[in-house]
Amino acid sequence: MSELRVAVVGAGLMGADHVIRIEERIIGAHVSAIVEPDEGRAKSAMATAPNATWFPNVEAAIEAKAMDAVLIATPGQFHEPVLVPALAAGLPILCEKPLTPDAASSLRMVEAEVATGKQLVQIGFMRRFDAGYENLRNLIAGKKQGELLGLHCAHRNPAVPDTYHNDMLIFDSVVHEIDAVRFLTDSPIKSVQVRHMKRNTLNPEKLNDPILVLLETESGVLASVEMNVSVQFGYQVKTEAVFEKGIAEIGRTAGMTTFFDGQIATEEHMSFKTRFAAAYDTQIQRWVNATKVGKIDGPSAWDGYLAAAAVEAGLTALHTGERVATEYAAKPAFYA
Amino acid sequence: MSELRVAVVGAGLMGADHVIRIEERIIGAHVSAIVEPDEGRAKSAMATAPNATWFPNVEAAIEAKAMDAVLIATPGQFHEPVLVPALAAGLPILCEKPLTPDAASSLRMVEAEVATGKQLVQIGFMRRFDAGYENLRNLIAGKKQGELLGLHCAHRNPAVPDTYHNDMLIFDSVVHEIDAVRFLTDSPIKSVQVRHMKRNTLNPEKLNDPILVLLETESGVLASVEMNVSVQFGYQVKTEAVFEKGIAEIGRTAGMTTFFDGQIATEEHMSFKTRFAAAYDTQIQRWVNATKVGKIDGPSAWDGYLAAAAVEAGLTALHTGERVATEYAAKPAFYA
Amino acid sequence: MSELRVAVVGAGLMGADHVIRIEERIIGAHVSAIVEPDEGRAKSAMATAPNATWFPNVEAAIEAKAMDAVLIATPGQFHEPVLVPALAAGLPILCEKPLTPDAASSLRMVEAEVATGKQLVQIGFMRRFDAGYENLRNLIAGKKQGELLGLHCAHRNPAVPDTYHNDMLIFDSVVHEIDAVRFLTDSPIKSVQVRHMKRNTLNPEKLNDPILVLLETESGVLASVEMNVSVQFGYQVKTEAVFEKGIAEIGRTAGMTTFFDGQIATEEHMSFKTRFAAAYDTQIQRWVNATKVGKIDGPSAWDGYLAAAAVEAGLTALHTGERVATEYAAKPAFYA
Amino acid sequence: MSELRVAVVGAGLMGADHVIRIEERIIGAHVSAIVEPDEGRAKSAMATAPNATWFPNVEAAIEAKAMDAVLIATPGQFHEPVLVPALAAGLPILCEKPLTPDAASSLRMVEAEVATGKQLVQIGFMRRFDAGYENLRNLIAGKKQGELLGLHCAHRNPAVPDTYHNDMLIFDSVVHEIDAVRFLTDSPIKSVQVRHMKRNTLNPEKLNDPILVLLETESGVLASVEMNVSVQFGYQVKTEAVFEKGIAEIGRTAGMTTFFDGQIATEEHMSFKTRFAAAYDTQIQRWVNATKVGKIDGPSAWDGYLAAAAVEAGLTALHTGERVATEYAAKPAFYA
Repeated sequence: MSELRVAVVGAGLMGADHVIRIEERIIGAHVSAIVEPDEGRAKSAMATAPNATWFPNVEAAIEAKAMDAVLIATPGQFHEPVLVPALAAGLPILCEKPLTPDAASSLRMVEAEVATGKQLVQIGFMRRFDAGYENLRNLIAGKKQGELLGLHCAHRNPAVPDTYHNDMLIFDSVVHEIDAVRFLTDSPIKSVQVRHMKRNTLNPEKLNDPILVLLETESGVLASVEMNVSVQFGYQVKTEAVFEKGIAEIGRTAGMTTFFDGQIATEEHMSFKTRFAAAYDTQIQRWVNATKVGKIDGPSAWDGYLAAAAVEAGLTALHTGERVATEYAAKPAFYA
Repeated sequence: MSELRVAVVGAGLMGADHVIRIEERIIGAHVSAIVEPDEGRAKSAMATAPNATWFPNVEAAIEAKAMDAVLIATPGQFHEPVLVPALAAGLPILCEKPLTPDAASSLRMVEAEVATGKQLVQIGFMRRFDAGYENLRNLIAGKKQGELLGLHCAHRNPAVPDTYHNDMLIFDSVVHEIDAVRFLTDSPIKSVQVRHMKRNTLNPEKLNDPILVLLETESGVLASVEMNVSVQFGYQVKTEAVFEKGIAEIGRTAGMTTFFDGQIATEEHMSFKTRFAAAYDTQIQRWVNATKVGKIDGPSAWDGYLAAAAVEAGLTALHTGERVATEYAAKPAFYA
Repeated sequence: MSELRVAVVGAGLMGADHVIRIEERIIGAHVSAIVEPDEGRAKSAMATAPNATWFPNVEAAIEAKAMDAVLIATPGQFHEPVLVPALAAGLPILCEKPLTPDAASSLRMVEAEVATGKQLVQIGFMRRFDAGYENLRNLIAGKKQGELLGLHCAHRNPAVPDTYHNDMLIFDSVVHEIDAVRFLTDSPIKSVQVRHMKRNTLNPEKLNDPILVLLETESGVLASVEMNVSVQFGYQVKTEAVFEKGIAEIGRTAGMTTFFDGQIATEEHMSFKTRFAAAYDTQIQRWVNATKVGKIDGPSAWDGYLAAAAVEAGLTALHTGERVATEYAAKPAFYA
Repeated sequence: MSELRVAVVGAGLMGADHVIRIEERIIGAHVSAIVEPDEGRAKSAMATAPNATWFPNVEAAIEAKAMDAVLIATPGQFHEPVLVPALAAGLPILCEKPLTPDAASSLRMVEAEVATGKQLVQIGFMRRFDAGYENLRNLIAGKKQGELLGLHCAHRNPAVPDTYHNDMLIFDSVVHEIDAVRFLTDSPIKSVQVRHMKRNTLNPEKLNDPILVLLETESGVLASVEMNVSVQFGYQVKTEAVFEKGIAEIGRTAGMTTFFDGQIATEEHMSFKTRFAAAYDTQIQRWVNATKVGKIDGPSAWDGYLAAAAVEAGLTALHTGERVATEYAAKPAFYA
């Protein structure tokens, strides 16, 4: 088949990054359309996508038959208005996480997809494409070391912008672990509890961070998540898995080791852009490959809905301090 | 001063180990008395302590003026009947943890010590003498990396004997972290919560293990403790400390690295005996040195009482699943 | 520009691997021709290159104008008969190492390239595209830790086939370090000495392996190379650099860490195919990108000649046990 | 048996250190005499050895029957005048390395010991008591990973005083590896070669450092030694052993791991005093224990002689650049 023509919707930080990725590193696809109301942003992104046409909204692009598939990279609250017409047009979609900001709207998207009669939506939980997570999942599934009993996760950012506020700890950051824990255990989140560590005085005043989030899966695995957005030293995402017969750990940095000034040291990442660079590339390449044969190859709209519902429980847990049970709609047979 | 004459009370596993330690590795002390009702055990321990006399009970040893100091290595429920006459005789005491099995009896011991007018009792929380814990405590106190915000502890045993039961997870094992967290943060435990990981089917049936224990200090630090007594692979005690500006970790093994059969590996400990060998020696040597000049150099009876009270909260937490606040008596001025 | 049409010459192990790489992972190029006398091999490789045409020899492909560029992946002794007509046709060439098997023929290739008036040849020393080597080179060039004084290299294979013989230790294996040391130090090899370690009885009888090779650069850096083709445990290529103010090390594995059976372990590579997978991809992608704008972006024919001349010195060193000085022709101004 | 009375000969840096060690950490021994011509030094050392008597020379101490055993800690050129009377008096001796500065005088000491009819002399090659070296030696002897083929050693000091000169690289520093390689392989050094790395401009002008020393054992093992006394960053002694089936490495630091300022780091030693602290203590304790039962428990005078002879070959190798064969006298049956 010839090259997949991709419309990138949203040309902000994330969208612009995807444009460069598709143009420079992804085989079998190119950016044919940039959908972005802000003309300046659109033109700036088009500098690296010479064959792309600019559209101010997704409907115009659909009418112009400007693409074979859609990559949605706008903020979460703007996903639904893009998803609805794209689904109606029967277009394959890679939708950056979250599917939508809340469980009710996410369930609407699930229903809209079911109505098309075909799985079209993949969610951008890119950690599923990280080699470490994949290896750990295989180790868990193989049961060579017995059952998985628990997980200790750490998700650490050096700092966050002033616009970052407390609820984002759950819906913007912990949402990654919510999906990753499910991916690793193959079991939905059953309850969420949030405990506070001592507050880091170096973060913006409205933040009460770091927190320790306890995610329990329906299969009985307990995952503790240190969510920490102001740890200063670097960007670090790691997971320690507790098995019946031992432990496994992913996420340690591995670069050059230097021995200077009395220290033996390796560098840590400073941003998700380098930490998950390969995962983003792999995600898009596999999505392009699958799309060409009419499939998705990653988390589905249903996975997006489950994450949205667990995020809701997580927000209640954050606000109340209680252990909060998740509530899910019945799973459509469509997602068997 | 001449050598310190030590009476070792209890010649079981732990006591016999202390006899060998004092005779073979500790400078300035020797075992002058072994107090043990079981003659066979006593004789067996005396094989490595040629100058020791056997006494069936501590009163007899006191009457014979057989020692300058007492090391209590019997199980916790037998500590009080030894502590009372030893305190009455004004003898310096190193008492293996716990001080006593519950808060009420521990408080009686505190009062008995206060009544002597002099600090005589040191508790055998040997982790305080481990180089790693000491380094970490200095890093915390120095505040070079900002305030300490949280701790992640793992306490893992390969397996436990059939006699080990559920409550022992708290009073026999987590008690070490209860004291260590206080030692590191210099702040008492304020509350305890217990969450269960998935149960390890390889442990004895009466055990529901591993657990995740959340210890909160009065200073606001949250410590998560994975207490795991059936992890099979080895004996591992480690702590990750979360600071405002970064992370520090202690407890990784460091031995020969081998590159065989496709793996780069280092050996892990299989028992506390090797993991904390140096800590035990350091503890006893420093106790001997301090005793000779009329002091103690380690955790006090008051520390033992605080641990016993936190253990009580921990047991309630284990049984109820709730977050349980600790309750402490007022601290006697004596322990300023 | 449209896609670069690449003719892959030689469809053995290496060539077939390059065909898959170009078709599946390289952007902006595809395999348009497979040049291979053996029809079976050619057809097998064409399974993954549906748009490629088979040619029994390079002259036929040139006459058919079947490609924009040539990738030579035949054994070294067959490079010259491909290079000569390809250069004559003015085609850009990526030539797997070595340029040719000896210094005299390599110098002929240099002269043939100079005669075309344009740099067309890049040599497949893929380590130059490994992130570790690149980071180390930058550290050396930056001189932040003072001058580089020495290097300790280890090049270890688990085992080699029976066809592998003693001289191959130098011309097939150490040749990588000969180029890498030059790449890192930016200085040609001045002398070579070979010392034997005790012979590994597990390798084929005609092999006297491992050896320790001492490469001295004109700039005064001494590099020791453990060349070891029968180390059994895994595939490992690492380098320790000694600076005036400290040490840096590259090549340690970094995967999942497991804690099972009393050991803390990470997996090692078992083959160059995984160890240098990213380096091979990067090499070809950058060659494709550069070729499209009429440049090369990697080691030149002159680099290939220098390596061939150092290999000759190395073979003499292997046979005599002496320290052997290298001899180089004068560098054509063309390679300024 | 009662406490061993030890005379420490030489109260300089090393001697004063041994006085503190014996008084504070060694069980079953005390310092009964300090032999030191300089009264100030002697008095200063006696501050930590309250029961010691000062003697200006060893003869006086012998006449006064002031000790049961002698620890010689003077510079190497002053060992012979102490060894001769101490041997004549039949006293057990721990002699700091080297036995004497050259092979001829070392052989005289061997003959003097043989004449007494009893092994009295142990040499202070303390690396033999380092846990890492001991583990590696056991791994080699067990042959579980096949034969040992080669060793890569690094011996790195941050800096040296101005009095340190070129020959000391061999007789003061490499002498440790000369003995350690023999200890690990159980085979004497057969030849020595010295190659220079690029000179470190940060060291004193008269030093041409670092060097790479190649030690070949009679059993065919080749050991490369990076001898580097001005590496600035820290004090590091490590060894990588090449077996038929894999690799083993000792000497990596293992302390607290910190994650600050974008780096994952552990501290390195800055001096042999911390790196080999435990080895020094173990050496002296085992010597004391063995001496009490009339034995030695460590390297003998013959080991000291072999090292002295290999040092002579090493100095010739340093001066000539040639591979120099060692020459040894026949081993007396006495040292079977």
